[in-house]
Amino acid sequence: MRVGVLTGGGDCPGLNAVIRAMVRKGVQNHGFEFTGFRDGWRGPLEGLTRQLDIPAVRGILPRGGTILGSSRTNPLKAENGVRRVKENLAKYEVDALVAIGGEDTLGVAARLYDEYGVPCVGVPKTIDNDLSATDYTFGFDTAVNIATEAIDRLHTTAESHMRVLVVEVMGRHAGWIALHAGLAGGANVILLPEQRFDLDQVCGWVESRFQASYAPIVVVAEGAMPKDGDLVVKDADQLDSFGHVRLSGIGDWLAKEIEKRTGKEARTTVLGHIQRGGTPTAFDRWLATRFGLHAIDAVRDREFGTMVALRGTDIVRVPLTEATAKLKTVDPALYAEAGVFFG
Amino acid sequence: MRVGVLTGGGDCPGLNAVIRAMVRKGVQNHGFEFTGFRDGWRGPLEGLTRQLDIPAVRGILPRGGTILGSSRTNPLKAENGVRRVKENLAKYEVDALVAIGGEDTLGVAARLYDEYGVPCVGVPKTIDNDLSATDYTFGFDTAVNIATEAIDRLHTTAESHMRVLVVEVMGRHAGWIALHAGLAGGANVILLPEQRFDLDQVCGWVESRFQASYAPIVVVAEGAMPKDGDLVVKDADQLDSFGHVRLSGIGDWLAKEIEKRTGKEARTTVLGHIQRGGTPTAFDRWLATRFGLHAIDAVRDREFGTMVALRGTDIVRVPLTEATAKLKTVDPALYAEAGVFFG
Amino acid sequence: MRVGVLTGGGDCPGLNAVIRAMVRKGVQNHGFEFTGFRDGWRGPLEGLTRQLDIPAVRGILPRGGTILGSSRTNPLKAENGVRRVKENLAKYEVDALVAIGGEDTLGVAARLYDEYGVPCVGVPKTIDNDLSATDYTFGFDTAVNIATEAIDRLHTTAESHMRVLVVEVMGRHAGWIALHAGLAGGANVILLPEQRFDLDQVCGWVESRFQASYAPIVVVAEGAMPKDGDLVVKDADQLDSFGHVRLSGIGDWLAKEIEKRTGKEARTTVLGHIQRGGTPTAFDRWLATRFGLHAIDAVRDREFGTMVALRGTDIVRVPLTEATAKLKTVDPALYAEAGVFFG
Amino acid sequence: MRVGVLTGGGDCPGLNAVIRAMVRKGVQNHGFEFTGFRDGWRGPLEGLTRQLDIPAVRGILPRGGTILGSSRTNPLKAENGVRRVKENLAKYEVDALVAIGGEDTLGVAARLYDEYGVPCVGVPKTIDNDLSATDYTFGFDTAVNIATEAIDRLHTTAESHMRVLVVEVMGRHAGWIALHAGLAGGANVILLPEQRFDLDQVCGWVESRFQASYAPIVVVAEGAMPKDGDLVVKDADQLDSFGHVRLSGIGDWLAKEIEKRTGKEARTTVLGHIQRGGTPTAFDRWLATRFGLHAIDAVRDREFGTMVALRGTDIVRVPLTEATAKLKTVDPALYAEAGVFFG
Repeated sequence: MRVGVLTGGGDCPGLNAVIRAMVRKGVQNHGFEFTGFRDGWRGPLEGLTRQLDIPAVRGILPRGGTILGSSRTNPLKAENGVRRVKENLAKYEVDALVAIGGEDTLGVAARLYDEYGVPCVGVPKTIDNDLSATDYTFGFDTAVNIATEAIDRLHTTAESHMRVLVVEVMGRHAGWIALHAGLAGGANVILLPEQRFDLDQVCGWVESRFQASYAPIVVVAEGAMPKDGDLVVKDADQLDSFGHVRLSGIGDWLAKEIEKRTGKEARTTVLGHIQRGGTPTAFDRWLATRFGLHAIDAVRDREFGTMVALRGTDIVRVPLTEATAKLKTVDPALYAEAGVFFG
Repeated sequence: MRVGVLTGGGDCPGLNAVIRAMVRKGVQNHGFEFTGFRDGWRGPLEGLTRQLDIPAVRGILPRGGTILGSSRTNPLKAENGVRRVKENLAKYEVDALVAIGGEDTLGVAARLYDEYGVPCVGVPKTIDNDLSATDYTFGFDTAVNIATEAIDRLHTTAESHMRVLVVEVMGRHAGWIALHAGLAGGANVILLPEQRFDLDQVCGWVESRFQASYAPIVVVAEGAMPKDGDLVVKDADQLDSFGHVRLSGIGDWLAKEIEKRTGKEARTTVLGHIQRGGTPTAFDRWLATRFGLHAIDAVRDREFGTMVALRGTDIVRVPLTEATAKLKTVDPALYAEAGVFFG
Repeated sequence: MRVGVLTGGGDCPGLNAVIRAMVRKGVQNHGFEFTGFRDGWRGPLEGLTRQLDIPAVRGILPRGGTILGSSRTNPLKAENGVRRVKENLAKYEVDALVAIGGEDTLGVAARLYDEYGVPCVGVPKTIDNDLSATDYTFGFDTAVNIATEAIDRLHTTAESHMRVLVVEVMGRHAGWIALHAGLAGGANVILLPEQRFDLDQVCGWVESRFQASYAPIVVVAEGAMPKDGDLVVKDADQLDSFGHVRLSGIGDWLAKEIEKRTGKEARTTVLGHIQRGGTPTAFDRWLATRFGLHAIDAVRDREFGTMVALRGTDIVRVPLTEATAKLKTVDPALYAEAGVFFG
Repeated sequence: MRVGVLTGGGDCPGLNAVIRAMVRKGVQNHGFEFTGFRDGWRGPLEGLTRQLDIPAVRGILPRGGTILGSSRTNPLKAENGVRRVKENLAKYEVDALVAIGGEDTLGVAARLYDEYGVPCVGVPKTIDNDLSATDYTFGFDTAVNIATEAIDRLHTTAESHMRVLVVEVMGRHAGWIALHAGLAGGANVILLPEQRFDLDQVCGWVESRFQASYAPIVVVAEGAMPKDGDLVVKDADQLDSFGHVRLSGIGDWLAKEIEKRTGKEARTTVLGHIQRGGTPTAFDRWLATRFGLHAIDAVRDREFGTMVALRGTDIVRVPLTEATAKLKTVDPALYAEAGVFFG
């Protein structure tokens, strides 16, 4: 049996750990052979491959990124995309295809399986932790730890100068990183995309923190929005071309507004790409490794159209369609729990 | 309402995060007052207290250890122990007592509640992750990350000298730290207390690793044992007086045996106390914080005799007796999963 | 003898280590008493003090920031500033004043000593390492390590997506952080304030890196400038109010220009305040501790008007005026050495 | 010109950074070719080589250990050793040999150059920082940081249980790691090989720390010795076969003696090999890189018989014989400086 593997979407610590676990188990336990497809769905679309065997995966467990490369190519939107993918799978004699990726990458896998019978197995990956079918995705714990360490460092700067420090973290549609890192870092305000914030209330928390003779840390997800009217971005052109590190992002906007309204100095730190790079935490290596091992089990069982997922401490299989059905956002009750630390 | 708090047993990163969350929520949301009892059950037994209010918990979230101190004192074994505890709770006008600890500490709480009506709520704590009522305990993730970083470092030393490196990690009765850190660190052999190991098999894995031109890392839980006959410890006196860092521990014994049988140089590193000290990881701060918040909910609801626990991503309440009923050891199937990486 | 202590300018990991060492040695070896002045020169100007004794300095060695607070207040520019400072020193019976700070803070100390006979001793502090009288200043090693870890992380993201990653680090007038972190992190381009860069050459290095099938990391000091014409900042208003994390900083500008000229995707990360916060490295704790011990020696010897400095592995005393005479910038020969790694 | 390279003695973070810098500069600036000799002096003795070109050194900057392997082989003690080394250098057409190592490795290089005309250049390497010709050696800063982080962690455990924690660090003949990490970690006692310690005094410091209601951390170099009589090691056999992690090492001995004399619980942590493995700190990467660049300059200038060394912030060349002439031990005055923190 020959197994194709691809990694799609934004990079995420743990991708290499999944790949390594799959190859180790596939080769050693089942005698599978592997074909690595390069750059996400562009690999099977254009026939770009990379040798994938035990020597190729040695030493990659602690390394961030993906040895297979990634892209956001969508074969369903390419001319004759499905036909070309199927031709390339046939050409490379691939009997099963494991797609490691987020909503978009797995959405393609789901449709290729459902509508075109391509034998796909999915492994969920999103640094934002916003896939509803699994308790956690790998990469998230690493991102949260990096953000927490940054917040730890910013506390001492805030205190020394009695300034507001605004920390913008990843999370366009879901505030998991902001919530976890904010709680773990002892933030005084946490703002999420799930709930529009009231700037007056934010300024109230900031001021009450200063009244207690401490300096506030405000953690804001990049997708958070103020209540009254949309965030007005004047220079939309700049916004688009720079992705995550937006020139006129919410962090900078918020710091300016807080400064204006409270009269306190405010500074912004946009954590940006350091949240998604580098060596994974132990939890992410463990989760990614187990996902890889169980994806091979699904391939062995020919249970295509499924995705591996974490439920409690168990790895289970769920339909690929379920994985991509609904964004997992932060439950208002969970967010309310954190409110005790605001101000 | 006045809430007493104590921390018992070995220290564990996250204890302070629990205490802080309880005080913040108790004071701010419910107007509770707090009494800190010092040094575990010795506090209520001997009437040793410490002021516990919002200023007292400022800045402690990222700090390891416990501001309340700890001990292994068991009031049930002390003369008139129960009576003295009840008298002291009355003296300090404590309406509810939250005990943060492991099997022993919570076992006392369970009996004090069941047999003597002391209004106890439990928060589970064991760095070894071996409490069956909860998916994870705080401190475990920190220990696993410290051990994983150590293994990462030891790989380069092993490779440079083509030596066997044996890493002894915590885990007397359960091998969770060894299993998680071994998997996350890319160990070539992982040995647990749950399953006696075959020294010949271990040496076979070591040799097969050298045949692939790599140097092996052997992760061994301190409670692991060889198959044939008990580990003979000649100098039992030394063993007892030094606790975790045992002079003739399994790590040293194993390195010597591997050296003798394979002819390869072998070295041991006993991680010891660094696994349980210092700042908690983001996960442990999050889990400890949520345990603290939910323990206050249980107190508010007067649901005594219960313990907070993690199930998936939810915090639930379980009977204290359930918490201490059974040691959670590593499932053989889970250990077998890891076997693909051995050798 | 009573010693006053103040910390001025931007915060810097190691300030607390200096304070602690001074108090420990002063009290224990010489029976000195201490007065902490709050918020830099505003302390002696306005008579703001804080108790400073052995209990006050317990546990602060590993903590970033400064327990004394800081400011950029300049008493020489305040009305009757010198008189007020002298009155407050007299009021608090301070016999010697230790000023811990950078060019501005020490410049005030130098003038107060030279022109007004205030008995000052200086301890050099600049995270940018740009004081010419000392081999290194504390805080610098911490900043370099934080930036290096960030670059390590960004490599894997760059490789996975074959993107240019531009990392903007601190350094307005001197490029020490960029040079050290760039070399330590394996950057492919390093740009300093000391030498205007040629954008074509930068793009050439970027392209040659891609030709070798790797993705480039560009490290740029915040004060670096292109060769042809000044960097045009359209929205000067935004620039001023946000300090280090500039909305239209050189990092963003550079990424856009590289993207435009090479056609390769480019992303920016502005490290900002995380470089100056948090726990100091071992080197910075060691250097700061030794500076503190030797500052007390200088006070004991009544060698006022001097500053402690590192030369090789020795701590020496130099005139305060020397310390602030000349900015220590990166030697062109040293920068040229790094050029072998460009491209 | 063809340059041979070897790494000898114990591994040390930064070895790969030296190798990389040499190859990058040698190939790019001078068109040199390289031959890697494997496993220290065993490489030229037995003709064991490894390809060494730009692709071979990609990505190795942050990796600990040495891609060339190491050994303690001494060709001067091997039969016809010098002749065989010279024959192999001739066979591989090596015009210059760069030896990266400590006292032993460089001592061989010095004699091969002085007595047999072998064109050697040395790069100093010792994790213990005990070479007198250079201010610092790479690897030392990494070891000190690892030890300091461990001490940071142990403080919280010591406080929670009010125990003595003894930390045994590397340093057989020189106490640099103990002194630097002890100072940086806020140890309450630091014991070095340079000065025999008085056990009564040590116990006095321990007790005075407890009297101040804190728990003491004792940092002891592995080569430290008590004043009265040698440390009696009963089981010498165990000692020899386990190198750094000695079964009856000074740390365990000291903890037992402290426990016996003060009646306080004491625990030992032997840091062992984790101090010398893993990724180097920014300082060590910088120093190792500069050593590599300057070693190539020495080769280019045909200044054989020399070694690169750090003096202040400059890299200089010194005679190889000077490098190995005298062990650099801790100056008693420097040790006395630290005494203010004892107790």
